[in-house]
Amino acid sequence: MPETVEIGLGRSARRGYHLDEIALVPTRRTRGSAVVSTAWQIDAHTFTLPLVVAPSDAVVSPDSALEIERLGGLAVLDGEGLWARYDDAAAELRALDGETATLQRVYAKPVSPELLRRRVAELRAAGVRVAVRLSPQHTAELAPHVLAEGVDLLVIQGTVISAEHVAEGDTPGLNLKTFIADLDVPVLVGGCTNHQTALHLMRTGAAGVIIGYGAHLGSTTHSALGIDVPMATALVDAATARRDYLDETGGRYVHLVAYGDLSTGGDIAKALACGADAVMLGDALAAAEQAPGDGHYWDATAAHPRVPRSVVTGLADADRPSLEELLVGPTADPSGERNLFGALRRVMGKCGYSTVKEFQKAELIITGTPR
Amino acid sequence: MPETVEIGLGRSARRGYHLDEIALVPTRRTRGSAVVSTAWQIDAHTFTLPLVVAPSDAVVSPDSALEIERLGGLAVLDGEGLWARYDDAAAELRALDGETATLQRVYAKPVSPELLRRRVAELRAAGVRVAVRLSPQHTAELAPHVLAEGVDLLVIQGTVISAEHVAEGDTPGLNLKTFIADLDVPVLVGGCTNHQTALHLMRTGAAGVIIGYGAHLGSTTHSALGIDVPMATALVDAATARRDYLDETGGRYVHLVAYGDLSTGGDIAKALACGADAVMLGDALAAAEQAPGDGHYWDATAAHPRVPRSVVTGLADADRPSLEELLVGPTADPSGERNLFGALRRVMGKCGYSTVKEFQKAELIITGTPR
Amino acid sequence: MPETVEIGLGRSARRGYHLDEIALVPTRRTRGSAVVSTAWQIDAHTFTLPLVVAPSDAVVSPDSALEIERLGGLAVLDGEGLWARYDDAAAELRALDGETATLQRVYAKPVSPELLRRRVAELRAAGVRVAVRLSPQHTAELAPHVLAEGVDLLVIQGTVISAEHVAEGDTPGLNLKTFIADLDVPVLVGGCTNHQTALHLMRTGAAGVIIGYGAHLGSTTHSALGIDVPMATALVDAATARRDYLDETGGRYVHLVAYGDLSTGGDIAKALACGADAVMLGDALAAAEQAPGDGHYWDATAAHPRVPRSVVTGLADADRPSLEELLVGPTADPSGERNLFGALRRVMGKCGYSTVKEFQKAELIITGTPR
Amino acid sequence: MPETVEIGLGRSARRGYHLDEIALVPTRRTRGSAVVSTAWQIDAHTFTLPLVVAPSDAVVSPDSALEIERLGGLAVLDGEGLWARYDDAAAELRALDGETATLQRVYAKPVSPELLRRRVAELRAAGVRVAVRLSPQHTAELAPHVLAEGVDLLVIQGTVISAEHVAEGDTPGLNLKTFIADLDVPVLVGGCTNHQTALHLMRTGAAGVIIGYGAHLGSTTHSALGIDVPMATALVDAATARRDYLDETGGRYVHLVAYGDLSTGGDIAKALACGADAVMLGDALAAAEQAPGDGHYWDATAAHPRVPRSVVTGLADADRPSLEELLVGPTADPSGERNLFGALRRVMGKCGYSTVKEFQKAELIITGTPR
Repeated sequence: MPETVEIGLGRSARRGYHLDEIALVPTRRTRGSAVVSTAWQIDAHTFTLPLVVAPSDAVVSPDSALEIERLGGLAVLDGEGLWARYDDAAAELRALDGETATLQRVYAKPVSPELLRRRVAELRAAGVRVAVRLSPQHTAELAPHVLAEGVDLLVIQGTVISAEHVAEGDTPGLNLKTFIADLDVPVLVGGCTNHQTALHLMRTGAAGVIIGYGAHLGSTTHSALGIDVPMATALVDAATARRDYLDETGGRYVHLVAYGDLSTGGDIAKALACGADAVMLGDALAAAEQAPGDGHYWDATAAHPRVPRSVVTGLADADRPSLEELLVGPTADPSGERNLFGALRRVMGKCGYSTVKEFQKAELIITGTPR
Repeated sequence: MPETVEIGLGRSARRGYHLDEIALVPTRRTRGSAVVSTAWQIDAHTFTLPLVVAPSDAVVSPDSALEIERLGGLAVLDGEGLWARYDDAAAELRALDGETATLQRVYAKPVSPELLRRRVAELRAAGVRVAVRLSPQHTAELAPHVLAEGVDLLVIQGTVISAEHVAEGDTPGLNLKTFIADLDVPVLVGGCTNHQTALHLMRTGAAGVIIGYGAHLGSTTHSALGIDVPMATALVDAATARRDYLDETGGRYVHLVAYGDLSTGGDIAKALACGADAVMLGDALAAAEQAPGDGHYWDATAAHPRVPRSVVTGLADADRPSLEELLVGPTADPSGERNLFGALRRVMGKCGYSTVKEFQKAELIITGTPR
Repeated sequence: MPETVEIGLGRSARRGYHLDEIALVPTRRTRGSAVVSTAWQIDAHTFTLPLVVAPSDAVVSPDSALEIERLGGLAVLDGEGLWARYDDAAAELRALDGETATLQRVYAKPVSPELLRRRVAELRAAGVRVAVRLSPQHTAELAPHVLAEGVDLLVIQGTVISAEHVAEGDTPGLNLKTFIADLDVPVLVGGCTNHQTALHLMRTGAAGVIIGYGAHLGSTTHSALGIDVPMATALVDAATARRDYLDETGGRYVHLVAYGDLSTGGDIAKALACGADAVMLGDALAAAEQAPGDGHYWDATAAHPRVPRSVVTGLADADRPSLEELLVGPTADPSGERNLFGALRRVMGKCGYSTVKEFQKAELIITGTPR
Repeated sequence: MPETVEIGLGRSARRGYHLDEIALVPTRRTRGSAVVSTAWQIDAHTFTLPLVVAPSDAVVSPDSALEIERLGGLAVLDGEGLWARYDDAAAELRALDGETATLQRVYAKPVSPELLRRRVAELRAAGVRVAVRLSPQHTAELAPHVLAEGVDLLVIQGTVISAEHVAEGDTPGLNLKTFIADLDVPVLVGGCTNHQTALHLMRTGAAGVIIGYGAHLGSTTHSALGIDVPMATALVDAATARRDYLDETGGRYVHLVAYGDLSTGGDIAKALACGADAVMLGDALAAAEQAPGDGHYWDATAAHPRVPRSVVTGLADADRPSLEELLVGPTADPSGERNLFGALRRVMGKCGYSTVKEFQKAELIITGTPR
């Protein structure tokens, strides 16, 4: 039974834990980094890093996707982002000024299916494994275009999604189960925050489920909507759903991708130790010199026409490291925000584990007030 | 049994939860905003928003009341505020300088029953549903004037009130039960913070009970008096009192109005999910261009002649949005402090509920230290 | 059983609560301020306020003691402070500059028994009820002088004292039990922080026990020594010791005086609700225009020659209210730091209690993270 | 059973406590400082202070080691630090500028076994008890040199070490058990953070185990690696391991040395009360006028070539006290950061204990949110 407390007479709630409320506990064995592997395999694809780069126009462009592939991760292009709306998306990116109103205006231009197809084709031509994100609302309309060009992984992602959407007006909601059953490519769906929804999303046939909505320094979903994801708890719950589903299906393993509150190597390590198979990073990579947002970060919720839920964050004149330094080092920055996966490798070794799958069983301790 | 802990040998206390210590958990179903209703009905009155605007001279004037009615909410005029003390209240408002001493001086002028009657009559003539707030101390004297002009809802409100007041000297305390029984108009009473008092207030025949005393950034009731209202706990307790009373009376439903610590759409959503039927907003609307306080906020406790318990807060040259942007949007402000009820509608949908009554059962999670 | 948790394998500790972690819960009855009494009686002495002013040279001088008596409280002169060391103590006070080294130098001058006698005699002549504080180390030597001049209440006080002191070298420790048994005047002893020590101090025959060591903004006892007093828990524990001792003696009631973390009317109210009979205030009164420290505050630990444990705090050019405004109002300051006992009277009424003794049973709620 | 909570469905974690979440509770007996002893004895060596100075080039040089010995503590020279890499280490220290990149460059020069031997010989000649730290990776290679010159205590220390290291490539991991069994000098090993590892390290035959990795203001191990050591819990766990091992061996007592989060006398007292026999201090002594880092502090992790995990902290023009004032006083600084062991002596007395061994049983209280 989960830890629940009565918040008032006759009404209970669970206590959820954020990643910064827990820490890893080393075991009685340690390992050298050289005997540790951080490899991740989903469907037919193998990556040397358990890394999915978030579908934010601030970090994924056709160009940065190439470099991410080279370094061992998977980049997701936002199929409803600027690259699918503007022929010269780079020019639009340069013109952004950090104001929400500007984002709302720029993202108001309709998505062009033709442009979207072209982007997929270009990525494919460059030899990159192609992943594209679509929102649940537009998947029915846009997915055929993306699939036609041969996407490798489809990402169906909104702030909070479910396997059972009651739509508005005449438009029927997307039936994820039917939709995914008909596909040949693996699908990643999310965000989701709890056991029940995770289980239902697994039952749609998805290859992976995204846990969280990408909370970052600029996110305001918690204040605007009252939804907050204690990531450690959400991942542990979803890992239990994964085990339940594994049992229910006699062996289908669904991947969990943690998305939100991930800034440092330690955050990544803790997310994996809570049960994630990989992490989706957005703002953590915004400072990269190859990041199209030029040091700024925003996600899809920032441009919502009526209820924007994220501000543009950024570090104007800051030092811009390479993606390589950020992901695999080496670095001379001791903050924990660079050489993210080099740090992961070290901590896996210090805790005595040699694969991510084993590391999911690492011992955790609750550390109280973040210091 | 509620969660209690021993704070010392032989003495226990409950742990109360503030709204910012909890968050909403989406369910396995989602709904589009178009199939969600935020409507609220109390007695014969229906509102499209579950909104009562607090009886603060900083936000409710005869003019702003009109706009609030138009947008779907209910404004409460302070029957002991400046509009009942000064013929040219607007001039007095302009002369305020944020000093407590000034407030004490300006509010020292006695209430004029005639002026109070005129305000009610004017509001009525303008087609607004009229709600007026009186303090328990002056209800006996002033209520007849208000009622004579045909008020739609009477609000009897102090920081903390009870159904059983032991008065000072010769003046007998107001007998709420007798008083309300004799009335034809519905009455809202409060503030109250716990199950027992809520139940007793319900038994007075009130149509609604206000939970909390309107804690806001400038409130000092917690430091001056040591009274603090963990709102989530207070609402859950009062919701249990409502259920007890429903059973006891064989079906009389008393409304709960949450008042305090409500700044964002998320705060409002969480208050409703804890059992509130509507929210009373004060400082959250102070920035509106139509707010008579010109961007500043204070409540009735700010002008107390001996023990003032609130400071004037305000944002001198800040951007002043319209009441419409604040309440129903759209907005380009991502802080969560604008389009409050548009955000509510979205989160109700994301959590899978279509009415406020259903939404009162939403799952909650305790999130620990506010981040 | 108290709430204990295991902090590690095989070792438990209790969770203590500070006053700012709890709040008062009003009951279903309220009272007007006029039917509330804050009176306190100890031994033959009655005070209209449950107030002892701390033996700090920053707040108690022969002059301020007169005003404190007039307003209804009891001032304690530090029998080892500047008034007992310097003929012209006022001149020394004026020369202080807030540096610890200066305090150490000024307080290095030996106490003059003759000067101490003169101060007591002067206070007595002025018609003030005289209370003098001595440290346990110097009580044996100095008390005879104080008693000879007719002190009304003797205060034996150190940071942490016990009924059983193992002394250094040849000097035997003060035997509190023998010492107090031989006295005719009531004795207040402390500070103390737990049930066991409180019970032992009660058994010395003391009229009252001081709980806490006067923690204030400038205190560093918690960092220098690792001793911290969660005041709510310490008071509740001591109240249980008082009940145990009452039973053990068949009716001797020992007073509890809370000392530390008391800045506002709310703090005072919560201390009484936890079981205190009166509060000892120091820094809360330092801003008074009559305070000899001229707006600055320090206590006896600030001048320790080897391990000073308090810094001088102060508000250079700040507004200096009268002691009357600070204690009984009225005030135009809404911070809760003025009209401390007017606020107490109001909250006792709002919670439905008419005497301090009844108010010690007020319901408390734990409010989590101070906001 | 330790306190564990479910952080999600089916997965539990313990709650760990940091030193700043607990405080000491005095008992019913007090003692004068003169009848308190802080002495520490490990193997054949006795020290008047339970103090080991951390092997950081910022605090231990051949010169400062002499003064530390004189004051009653034990200094550990970093056998892989600048003194073992440069003939004129002082010149290198002067050239450091606080940049991680500079540290990485300066520490890239290989360790010279000859230089290391010379340093040990010099210290020995000066009459200091010599302790040298080596990393587990280089112990096999460098220890013979150190031992040949007659070291008194060998310290084998990394961020996190274990008794069972799986090495990389062809290099076999150091077998601590075999290695220590063959030695004549006592060995201190660490850091370690939990019961299981502590027990295994004790079984290697070590004379002492270091608990913690020296977390200080500049540490980023918690963010970079996700490892955090709630010191109070780690010490209590290790003390239980010590008791288990004592039982298992029929009487071999292994010393615990706390390392991390120790800035004040109170921190030191609490670490001992949790079970430590001595403390290892680093940054707490960096301000000393004799500290070779000239007011700055860094540890070995700061210079890691790929994943640095500490920044250089420091107080440019700050006041520089003597080591004597920092360790044994007297002082005019009331922060608790000077006269560290004078304060320890006082608090041991105030709590009623006369030796460190007895003080390990002092009562603790959890104080909630650090104030």
